[in-house]
Amino acid sequence: MVPPVGRTAVRRLPEKQVHDRAALDAVLDAGLVAHVAVHDDGGQPYVVPVGYARDGDSVLIHGSTASRLFRSLAEGAPTCLTVTLLDGLVLARSVFESSMHYRSAMVLGMATTLEGPDQVRGLERVSEHLMPGRWADARQPSRKELAATLVLSLPLVEWSVKVSDGPPDDATDDLALPVWAGILPLHERYGQPTPAPDLRDGLDVPEYVRGWTRR
Amino acid sequence: MVPPVGRTAVRRLPEKQVHDRAALDAVLDAGLVAHVAVHDDGGQPYVVPVGYARDGDSVLIHGSTASRLFRSLAEGAPTCLTVTLLDGLVLARSVFESSMHYRSAMVLGMATTLEGPDQVRGLERVSEHLMPGRWADARQPSRKELAATLVLSLPLVEWSVKVSDGPPDDATDDLALPVWAGILPLHERYGQPTPAPDLRDGLDVPEYVRGWTRR
Repeated sequence: MVPPVGRTAVRRLPEKQVHDRAALDAVLDAGLVAHVAVHDDGGQPYVVPVGYARDGDSVLIHGSTASRLFRSLAEGAPTCLTVTLLDGLVLARSVFESSMHYRSAMVLGMATTLEGPDQVRGLERVSEHLMPGRWADARQPSRKELAATLVLSLPLVEWSVKVSDGPPDDATDDLALPVWAGILPLHERYGQPTPAPDLRDGLDVPEYVRGWTRR
Repeated sequence: MVPPVGRTAVRRLPEKQVHDRAALDAVLDAGLVAHVAVHDDGGQPYVVPVGYARDGDSVLIHGSTASRLFRSLAEGAPTCLTVTLLDGLVLARSVFESSMHYRSAMVLGMATTLEGPDQVRGLERVSEHLMPGRWADARQPSRKELAATLVLSLPLVEWSVKVSDGPPDDATDDLALPVWAGILPLHERYGQPTPAPDLRDGLDVPEYVRGWTRR
């Protein structure tokens, strides 16, 4: 249990903050895309979606050595990585109390670059998080591809997690209103795989792909 | 048609950049949650998920007057608002070319605070984007609730849109590999509405809620 401290402490709606590390891991392990920020010399922030994976006590992201975002992160720019899972709409009797069910994890810090065997292992970890079983089946990265790729590790030291769930929280005076209230859940599902137009004959969708599910 | 200029020009994978305003509107109109960044005096960025709506040539967001993010934005902090729709996984023959189908819109700028009738109209716009038909049914905000709410408008002046679609883009040498390749689409769906435990008798799920769909 690592309670968030200082600048990651949730000041708004603190009742939604969750302090245990297992909750952080659960959110990070359930998402596919993180939103990562850096700012330029003029103080303008940029928020970019990236694939990621949790790897023990770190979050790994990978990108091109030609990416400004990744170059900036590799140089030690302070960053924030946020993963949000949207779980539903909360329909309260009042517009004011209407909101969303969500789980959101925020990680602050500075990333370091993984090199050598750690770089390859990091890529495998991200690949296996997003597409479990694929690493052993697909062609693994060449030296040239590795040289064009930055794999960055952001430690899970300064973080916070917020979870919004439960029924609508209407004011007592609103409970008598003739307005339906409740939760409309939101799910993510994989559809039917579509083969590449230039797929070789005789190749079926792999069993490991058929086993992938969302929430 | 407003082509993105300067700092929103996409340098990485520029072939994925889409320059027409209709594409921007389509992404913003399809999403529910944006990731919004500000940074503190020490240069630490923060990325926070927020509900939003496009309103003509602006994006509107709303939050509490007690929120550091919203107060900072209301004071004119430069921000970046990014909306990402994840549409599927791209399974290439190589790990290197494996990626995702997505649509992502980034808006840079400074927000202004909506006041008076504009504030109420802005809240209605956000509510109707997320929950169409709800504004007329639910209890609308009181003066006290309005006083606790900031509604901010970010103009669609400096923006970029990236769209990744199409089949895997494997190197010619990889096409002969015995590896299945294709697209695994990802969909978002609403589930069955769950009534609030303290719902008054005799209220059914409204027709307008039953009509809500995702992608």
